[in-house]
Amino acid sequence: MTNDSFKANSASIDGLSALLKRPHTLATIAELLGWDEQVNLPPGGAELRAGQLSALAEAAHAAASDPRIGEHIAALEKDAEKLSPDGRAVVRWARRDYDRATKLPAEFVREKAAHVSRAYHAWAAAREKADFAAYAPALEKNMDLVRREAAYLGHGGSGAEAYDYMIDQHDPGMSAAAVEKLFDELKAGLVPLVRRMTASPVKARAGILRGCAVEKQKAFLREVTERMGFDYNHGRIDVSLHPFCAGTGDDIRMTTRYDADNPLDSLFSAIHEAGHGIYEQGLPAGRRHTALGQAAGMGAHESQSRLWENQVARSRGFWRYFEPRFREAFPEQTRGISPDELYLAINAVKPGLIRVDADEVTYNLHIILRFELEKKLFSGGLAVAGLPRAWNAASRELLGLEPANDREGVLQDVHWSGASFGYFPSYCIGNMVAAQLWYAALAERPALENDFARGDFSWLLGWLRAKVHSQGRLHDTPGLVRHATGAELSPKPLLRYLEERYSPLYC
Amino acid sequence: MTNDSFKANSASIDGLSALLKRPHTLATIAELLGWDEQVNLPPGGAELRAGQLSALAEAAHAAASDPRIGEHIAALEKDAEKLSPDGRAVVRWARRDYDRATKLPAEFVREKAAHVSRAYHAWAAAREKADFAAYAPALEKNMDLVRREAAYLGHGGSGAEAYDYMIDQHDPGMSAAAVEKLFDELKAGLVPLVRRMTASPVKARAGILRGCAVEKQKAFLREVTERMGFDYNHGRIDVSLHPFCAGTGDDIRMTTRYDADNPLDSLFSAIHEAGHGIYEQGLPAGRRHTALGQAAGMGAHESQSRLWENQVARSRGFWRYFEPRFREAFPEQTRGISPDELYLAINAVKPGLIRVDADEVTYNLHIILRFELEKKLFSGGLAVAGLPRAWNAASRELLGLEPANDREGVLQDVHWSGASFGYFPSYCIGNMVAAQLWYAALAERPALENDFARGDFSWLLGWLRAKVHSQGRLHDTPGLVRHATGAELSPKPLLRYLEERYSPLYC
Repeated sequence: MTNDSFKANSASIDGLSALLKRPHTLATIAELLGWDEQVNLPPGGAELRAGQLSALAEAAHAAASDPRIGEHIAALEKDAEKLSPDGRAVVRWARRDYDRATKLPAEFVREKAAHVSRAYHAWAAAREKADFAAYAPALEKNMDLVRREAAYLGHGGSGAEAYDYMIDQHDPGMSAAAVEKLFDELKAGLVPLVRRMTASPVKARAGILRGCAVEKQKAFLREVTERMGFDYNHGRIDVSLHPFCAGTGDDIRMTTRYDADNPLDSLFSAIHEAGHGIYEQGLPAGRRHTALGQAAGMGAHESQSRLWENQVARSRGFWRYFEPRFREAFPEQTRGISPDELYLAINAVKPGLIRVDADEVTYNLHIILRFELEKKLFSGGLAVAGLPRAWNAASRELLGLEPANDREGVLQDVHWSGASFGYFPSYCIGNMVAAQLWYAALAERPALENDFARGDFSWLLGWLRAKVHSQGRLHDTPGLVRHATGAELSPKPLLRYLEERYSPLYC
Repeated sequence: MTNDSFKANSASIDGLSALLKRPHTLATIAELLGWDEQVNLPPGGAELRAGQLSALAEAAHAAASDPRIGEHIAALEKDAEKLSPDGRAVVRWARRDYDRATKLPAEFVREKAAHVSRAYHAWAAAREKADFAAYAPALEKNMDLVRREAAYLGHGGSGAEAYDYMIDQHDPGMSAAAVEKLFDELKAGLVPLVRRMTASPVKARAGILRGCAVEKQKAFLREVTERMGFDYNHGRIDVSLHPFCAGTGDDIRMTTRYDADNPLDSLFSAIHEAGHGIYEQGLPAGRRHTALGQAAGMGAHESQSRLWENQVARSRGFWRYFEPRFREAFPEQTRGISPDELYLAINAVKPGLIRVDADEVTYNLHIILRFELEKKLFSGGLAVAGLPRAWNAASRELLGLEPANDREGVLQDVHWSGASFGYFPSYCIGNMVAAQLWYAALAERPALENDFARGDFSWLLGWLRAKVHSQGRLHDTPGLVRHATGAELSPKPLLRYLEERYSPLYC
């Protein structure tokens, strides 16, 4: 570092930002390689790709650990009160990233990387055979690694503290206690609603749309996502086994998958991923290498994908505009289907054992189940060996269904095999935030669905840009909700939304 | 560097190889990003991509300049006579790459990068307006940069020396004098052949194949390239504006382009690129980060693409197998076309002004023209300002055609705008090497075309694997030809081949 390039005043925020550009840029390359791996990579290229990602991770780590970054942060922290709120956010997040890059011993990082790779394979093998016991030791070790990681970063002491650390990693400002309070209230309202819906004689007919040509599906979902506001000048959509969204707002790579007999799957997957993409595209351009241009957290991200997928794209207004177009694209396939039948198929609800197949109502119960088990695991109230039995009991209680084996129970998700604890709650936090944003937007524009009925999503997009996207990482998750809606994060809007949307259909 | 990791004996070749892995891997990432830029990148992502490539270039340069590499090389060079031929090749090429990474001042590298970017835009603008004078200063500066680069790397002194350096960069072991000798002999045989063909009453009918569905073209060229031996487990083919081949043998990314009214263009482009890809796939796996697993040079590379594209895929034997399949794919489009007409369309020859549109006969004249001008430019026999007039005169002499303006003359190619002097000769060297390899293979297996007529390319592939691919960079260009054919590089086989293939058709 040369002295003249550094001053502990407003100018040095620029200096810090400039230093953050390099690790950020290298991270965007890793993201592109990850996308390419899912979308393009020929099978024989897997080993090369692993080597590329590893070399890139090393380069990115070196860039993120640049001592000049640490020096800038330390000097700015000393005079933090002189900084603007923007500047403080930049420094706060730079500190978090810098500590993560520098405080974890290289030996630990290697050990963790090697173990989660083994744990993934142990999980995949155990799932295949529905044999939880074979996977349990790898899972225990994953928990141990997370506890040690938390301790390195100053959150040592207890398993509960480590779990709080993990939750905060995914949703800044949240803790296990805060999540528990929200989920308890949600559960109290949701379980009876699902019971009522399950008891209803109304059932959505599965698989009513068959033989829908993939090219037509592509054209239709392209029209939908463009209308929503996804900018194809800064993004594209391709095909992968599991839909996902990668990249930054300058170049978003989202994916979906096509099944001629299930056009609603590709469509809603694409709408969901486009919601993620629209968020990234709306983050302040030119600031993407600092906290000012980055997403507020996992829950915030999920709120954007879920709001478009559920509140918007399952609404009557949305289909008032798109139903004629959908029928035009698939005239024969929709001929015998009434508008009400189609709308019910779009809003089908049925409790099941598998999270990724769940509808938007019961999905939350899957998450609550996982959160409660994670919390007990880390607080010591539950041993890994006791997980399958606890899972099955919770499944019976929450979903009214018990897995026949661990493959459709505790072994169904990949997350824990990657030591991604504290990740699941974000999905449900996202659902709560989405509903809360929805009613806040409706309060400002009660006839919002009339916009949709004209195929006009611009008011909503503008509102989300102003309230959420433009905020980058200025707020933590509860702070963002407060900023955008003027109220504390609460499960009440989600309960209200599910009641209003589904009671008329099913109850 | 720790002392125990380094010994100046055979073991340290392994040490050096290990150090070379990182810069190589980072270079493969840059290659993938370049492919993605041509194939996938949404327009709005261009600036991000430029930043990614720049960050990656910096990381790759740092890895390639690792002082431990230099120390290994220096120690190994001291005991070079104790090394195996493989070891010597590894060290020789590591020296070349290390010097390139460390001897060019950072300031010069930046200046060159910035200027070639400006020169590209100057060229594109000048080409648009057919205004050579507007581009001339940028071209002069490019020549100056190349002279300075050559001087930094020990080839200073004269422009002629700089041009030799550039030729050797593309084709190791070659020089302007060596190229001139080959090209003079080639020209003496080629010009009369082209005159005879042009005077012939036989003309290939252009555009006889119309309305060939792109999906059918895709399936057909996939079958052809797979039969040739391209391994789609380690590669794929996509679409780009200009066909190219990128990647390493583990993951080859080739492209073509489709025109319903010109299926032979996409087919022969794909065959050409598959020839490049097959070479990369045949280089020793696991050695790709050293000279032992890298292509011998540009001419060698081009020899592989041209041999498959021309000697193989324009042969009677090849079409004996594929013509029925081609007609089956395009029954209506081929109905009125006789086998002879089809074969003539595949082997159409017509002198034209534009290199990239040229057939395999006249293509060589385009290259000779460029080489002669480059040589004069660097030896001082021609000023940049005199280029257009010299170009037009050479075009009249060699092709019998004069450009109406500089857009279809001296401004048609991008190469010089990127300071890529000494690149053009490789194309023609590739053609000479391809023909020489062809007759060497035929000498061992005279009935080679009978293999093709059965759709069997395995003998030829095996021969190329043994004679060329397995050799990596063990030899320079003349050395590789000597190794593979037992003879000195010569234009005679190419003249013989063109005579044998085209005289019966046209003369």
